Amino acid sequence: MGDRFLKIRENSEQLCKPLMIEDYSLQASEFVSPPKWHLAHSTWFWEEFVLTKYVENYVLYNEDFHFLYNSYYNNVGKRVLRPARGLMSRPTVAEVYKYRKYVTAAVIAFLNTNPKKEILDIIEIGINHEEQHQELLVYDIKYILGNQPTFPVYQDSFKTKVISHAAGFIKIDAGLYQIGHQGNGFCFDNELESHKVYVNDFEISNTLVTNQEYLDFILAGGYGNFNFWHDDGWSWINSNKIEAPLYWYKIESEWWNYTLNGLEKVVLDLPVMHISFYEAFAYSEWKGCRLPTEFEWEIASDKFQWGQLWEWTNSAYLAYPGFSKSPGALGEYNGKFMINQMILRGASVATPEGHSRKTYRNFFPPDMRWQFGGLRLVK
Amino acid sequence: MGDRFLKIRENSEQLCKPLMIEDYSLQASEFVSPPKWHLAHSTWFWEEFVLTKYVENYVLYNEDFHFLYNSYYNNVGKRVLRPARGLMSRPTVAEVYKYRKYVTAAVIAFLNTNPKKEILDIIEIGINHEEQHQELLVYDIKYILGNQPTFPVYQDSFKTKVISHAAGFIKIDAGLYQIGHQGNGFCFDNELESHKVYVNDFEISNTLVTNQEYLDFILAGGYGNFNFWHDDGWSWINSNKIEAPLYWYKIESEWWNYTLNGLEKVVLDLPVMHISFYEAFAYSEWKGCRLPTEFEWEIASDKFQWGQLWEWTNSAYLAYPGFSKSPGALGEYNGKFMINQMILRGASVATPEGHSRKTYRNFFPPDMRWQFGGLRLVK
Amino acid sequence: MGDRFLKIRENSEQLCKPLMIEDYSLQASEFVSPPKWHLAHSTWFWEEFVLTKYVENYVLYNEDFHFLYNSYYNNVGKRVLRPARGLMSRPTVAEVYKYRKYVTAAVIAFLNTNPKKEILDIIEIGINHEEQHQELLVYDIKYILGNQPTFPVYQDSFKTKVISHAAGFIKIDAGLYQIGHQGNGFCFDNELESHKVYVNDFEISNTLVTNQEYLDFILAGGYGNFNFWHDDGWSWINSNKIEAPLYWYKIESEWWNYTLNGLEKVVLDLPVMHISFYEAFAYSEWKGCRLPTEFEWEIASDKFQWGQLWEWTNSAYLAYPGFSKSPGALGEYNGKFMINQMILRGASVATPEGHSRKTYRNFFPPDMRWQFGGLRLVK
Amino acid sequence: MGDRFLKIRENSEQLCKPLMIEDYSLQASEFVSPPKWHLAHSTWFWEEFVLTKYVENYVLYNEDFHFLYNSYYNNVGKRVLRPARGLMSRPTVAEVYKYRKYVTAAVIAFLNTNPKKEILDIIEIGINHEEQHQELLVYDIKYILGNQPTFPVYQDSFKTKVISHAAGFIKIDAGLYQIGHQGNGFCFDNELESHKVYVNDFEISNTLVTNQEYLDFILAGGYGNFNFWHDDGWSWINSNKIEAPLYWYKIESEWWNYTLNGLEKVVLDLPVMHISFYEAFAYSEWKGCRLPTEFEWEIASDKFQWGQLWEWTNSAYLAYPGFSKSPGALGEYNGKFMINQMILRGASVATPEGHSRKTYRNFFPPDMRWQFGGLRLVK
Repeated sequence: MGDRFLKIRENSEQLCKPLMIEDYSLQASEFVSPPKWHLAHSTWFWEEFVLTKYVENYVLYNEDFHFLYNSYYNNVGKRVLRPARGLMSRPTVAEVYKYRKYVTAAVIAFLNTNPKKEILDIIEIGINHEEQHQELLVYDIKYILGNQPTFPVYQDSFKTKVISHAAGFIKIDAGLYQIGHQGNGFCFDNELESHKVYVNDFEISNTLVTNQEYLDFILAGGYGNFNFWHDDGWSWINSNKIEAPLYWYKIESEWWNYTLNGLEKVVLDLPVMHISFYEAFAYSEWKGCRLPTEFEWEIASDKFQWGQLWEWTNSAYLAYPGFSKSPGALGEYNGKFMINQMILRGASVATPEGHSRKTYRNFFPPDMRWQFGGLRLVK
Repeated sequence: MGDRFLKIRENSEQLCKPLMIEDYSLQASEFVSPPKWHLAHSTWFWEEFVLTKYVENYVLYNEDFHFLYNSYYNNVGKRVLRPARGLMSRPTVAEVYKYRKYVTAAVIAFLNTNPKKEILDIIEIGINHEEQHQELLVYDIKYILGNQPTFPVYQDSFKTKVISHAAGFIKIDAGLYQIGHQGNGFCFDNELESHKVYVNDFEISNTLVTNQEYLDFILAGGYGNFNFWHDDGWSWINSNKIEAPLYWYKIESEWWNYTLNGLEKVVLDLPVMHISFYEAFAYSEWKGCRLPTEFEWEIASDKFQWGQLWEWTNSAYLAYPGFSKSPGALGEYNGKFMINQMILRGASVATPEGHSRKTYRNFFPPDMRWQFGGLRLVK
Repeated sequence: MGDRFLKIRENSEQLCKPLMIEDYSLQASEFVSPPKWHLAHSTWFWEEFVLTKYVENYVLYNEDFHFLYNSYYNNVGKRVLRPARGLMSRPTVAEVYKYRKYVTAAVIAFLNTNPKKEILDIIEIGINHEEQHQELLVYDIKYILGNQPTFPVYQDSFKTKVISHAAGFIKIDAGLYQIGHQGNGFCFDNELESHKVYVNDFEISNTLVTNQEYLDFILAGGYGNFNFWHDDGWSWINSNKIEAPLYWYKIESEWWNYTLNGLEKVVLDLPVMHISFYEAFAYSEWKGCRLPTEFEWEIASDKFQWGQLWEWTNSAYLAYPGFSKSPGALGEYNGKFMINQMILRGASVATPEGHSRKTYRNFFPPDMRWQFGGLRLVK
Repeated sequence: MGDRFLKIRENSEQLCKPLMIEDYSLQASEFVSPPKWHLAHSTWFWEEFVLTKYVENYVLYNEDFHFLYNSYYNNVGKRVLRPARGLMSRPTVAEVYKYRKYVTAAVIAFLNTNPKKEILDIIEIGINHEEQHQELLVYDIKYILGNQPTFPVYQDSFKTKVISHAAGFIKIDAGLYQIGHQGNGFCFDNELESHKVYVNDFEISNTLVTNQEYLDFILAGGYGNFNFWHDDGWSWINSNKIEAPLYWYKIESEWWNYTLNGLEKVVLDLPVMHISFYEAFAYSEWKGCRLPTEFEWEIASDKFQWGQLWEWTNSAYLAYPGFSKSPGALGEYNGKFMINQMILRGASVATPEGHSRKTYRNFFPPDMRWQFGGLRLVK
């Protein structure tokens, strides 16, 4: 486990390699966190949930950091409020890297003492937690750079691929299916308990909707016809003047989009990304189709390729039957967010390797677009 | 059908009998509509969906009213925005009653021509629509009067009753159940299609939670402990300084609440009402129980008494399999609200007689409290 | 004084004669008060500052009203916050008229006891206070009716007249002038102390700017050129999308405006009204002129006609040398508003007869437009 | 003039020496600009108003910077909106220093060509402009560092001194005085034209109000008594929960304040600073005194020491008689801000040497506190 732990720690830092020091502290929107904060918070997690709990006489790197880098764990005491994360130029980037080094070494030393199974389970959560922040790091870096007037380049990575196989629909028979995580492997509490769900017959697309298809919706006036939209969605596009996916810019009648490689022309064959649930829903209405439920998605997932983009479903984020929160602060991980959010299934090109499985339940409010998300239709 | 129609029209006006002219035009909050608006809008609906469509040479009572009393039907053209409904002192109350009389007579005349089945179906929708507004009228009147410094009395009606039978839990076996509306009776589009749902074993309370039980939660510090709350709910109670159900006031260490009969001491044996989904959820967490899903509620509903208060479920408002919207403006009735809302099941003392059934799906955003809603636990 | 008092009380009620009961309780914007509130508050003033202070064993009409109809006198205890004034449908209009009758009779009875000079001084303030509210009543009634989709008619009154004499500029010599109120007549505390002010030579127009002249500014693109505007004014017109005076509507390429007599075509020869300080300033910049200071206005006022519209000056509302507030609650009358407001001088067609004098200092924030205000140029 | 120019350019960079790279891009509040922005904008000014205008074939350092570093000059085209200044991590700090070097060299080369008087006048404005930004840099750096949980140290500089001489009041006789700038030295357009003002007798304090004196006001409940406050000020302290000057923190019943040298105990003998106009006014009301007008201040200024802190006056920022704006973009420098702001006179320890004179008119909205400002009483 030590090697895996080291690799994960190393990966977080690799993601920040292309950044300038100036990029680390910016908070470009309330829902975005500065890269420095991610590096520090994923370190705080280890200190808070492993080192201070299980290592005798562990000396905190710096008492202030306990307060500064808590994210949303009310059980762990006071914390810097989310919108203020971008006001901290100190501690400096160099200091945060030192903090990481100190804590990484301490965890490794602790792992060498052969901790027992239940502690290894928490280590496993810590690894998955840091992996989640790696994906958020990519989203946040893109948002920070992509909202600057000069559109700086990050690097030529995390690219989606053109869907090359023929589009078609896969038929699934009605019946009772087993949903949720089974077996001994790691999963989050929200994937449990595994339970039966009855679904009707349905047909699901074997491809994601492409930029070309989505552009057809734009050109057909999709953003101007309320019949395709939820009432909330219609308010949202109108009060925010939204007319295309996030990062799309129309320059002299051509569509460009910001990618991690800078501003580029929209590649029509690629799957459309950076759309909200409202937009995914409106597109499906316009197309005379619908979005899958998360159950339909999970049932059919062995029969199509997935993993380029998270896929919006028409399921709200709710507890499975028998769901129970962990005791203590880790119980705040998932349960308290089960309201006003929609489920996305799959994974994206920004998801760390080995972090995905077909029972994984990702979730975002219906107006969020900066995540790497797209859509697949059902009829 | 003419008699039923006349009765429904008469009922709307009866509800406003205890009001003073001054009360009719007030909009006490953005989600509340003035009583005059309800009277006029439920009349507009008949003009818009029946008279102008099916009565040859029908003469509108007043062309302006077409614009003034549309609620949210984008398909029917421009409309007065919701927050501006309370800025209209004109047309006067007397004028609106004249409008009602004119339209009622025209519909009756039309009914005497024996319209065909498909038109009668729209009449049926119109009746159900006006019944829904009757219930909203009660909520809105209570809100308008209950937020004035003098707490005026409406009348001594729409009272809940003390639950007299012994409290206990009803066991339901796991299995596949048929959910949704069946048969030829009227239902809304969101109750269709009837479909199968698998549920696990569960036990559901045969009583609603009472004021006494809810007060225990308050006294135990329930509003001050984030562990019981959704993250959104916790923000909501803190930014709105919420510490008790709507209409509750602590006066010299005793709890009073505004009722349609004026300010009265809280009666501890009555079912608790005017709580948000967030509060219902937090209470159930504190109690170590949970809210039923809407499916569990429907399955178990024959085994307990219901109808005093709408009951929050832990189901989000989403389309049933095979759901399809009506064509045209009536398609805006339900479907476009299927996001960010939670289902309530049952009915309340303010629900018009004959307007309830066990498959009825009511829905509100999780922070709404002015409706007559309470909760029932599952374990 | 009794006759004058009775006349003033009668006048307030006359102003409301054309209203329907529905109109009395509306609050169309935060800065507008419902007519019922004006009627009650100007009555409360008499109860609060005269009857409860000087009449032995005076019995309040209703204890609640003490709380309900305080406006901004913090010294007098709790009060209904300004934005909530429009949420009170009770007490009813009839009740408020009873309240007025009761208090009017009590004041008359008190006046018959021949109160001493210092009490008569407070009566004088009460009369002037009620006159001020009469003018505000006109503004508020216009705002309430003028913002309804049906543009109801109030009555054909409070009309400005066409300026018939030749336009020209009056020269005033530089020198030391005496400013502020002198003599024994009534004035507000903010007109004192009378003091010397030195002004340079200036020339002031003998006419108000007309609708035609202001329309020229609009047609010349005045609302689209930032060079004429204060930085705050430019933000204000842009964020509020302001392109013409308040109550102006462009209907099929012609300009109409709402008057108390309903929607009418803009009469070009009339003085322009319902403009903010920002607009008055921008107009004067465009014209290559400027607004007068309040001192220049006062010095020159004997040499031109005034009284149709309040006239924006380029003076901020500040204390005169030697200004001192009255003790107690009446000290809150003026002094605490001496920040972020600009002075208007003169009077308007809505000013009660006998309520104006050349030293009178009216004041509003620079973005307010619902008062009857216009402008006069200086070069 | 070359030497003076070089010195000024060097000074701006010296001010940033103690900063870490992370500090340069933060915008801690909408009214604060990032240090990097000041360095770049004061450079842009030279390029915009000197180099591109008067140097033949001048090659812009980077075309994007023209857009990025405009502040509020609408005449010069599009600009980055103020609240977005803190979202730019690029160009980097190093790049901005290169930009400065390039432009400084170009201006020096141009100065060597012996430009004519009218161009030297613009150079003079540029120098004064950069000096103004130097003072703002100090305010902004203090705000950025002082609002971080770790209270980082800048350096031990810009300290006020204890007032050692005896406090007393200076009498000034009534009379006509000449106000505004005279002679050939540099001044801003808002200091002109010099003109006569008549003032009454007054007495002005020879000291600034101290922390001890202000603390007495706090302890006497000054922040809780509305009688001392403007109506707007009372709203402001209540909605922002303000109970002490900016940067003051009560820690275990002792008052500390953030200084550029870190968090320190409040030194009672120092002049109070970081108070708003509202607070200065309320203090003077509580003391039974008043603030001077800007004219009184200017007349009396030769008779007391000034220069530690800007001093709030009770004068609104308005044009002097005969005020005229420069043509073109430089005309936007001052005139368009002459609304809703109050005048401060004097200078502060953060004012660059040689940048102050007794006719200098500084101005801020009445709720601003981050500038180095205090107060002096008049009776």
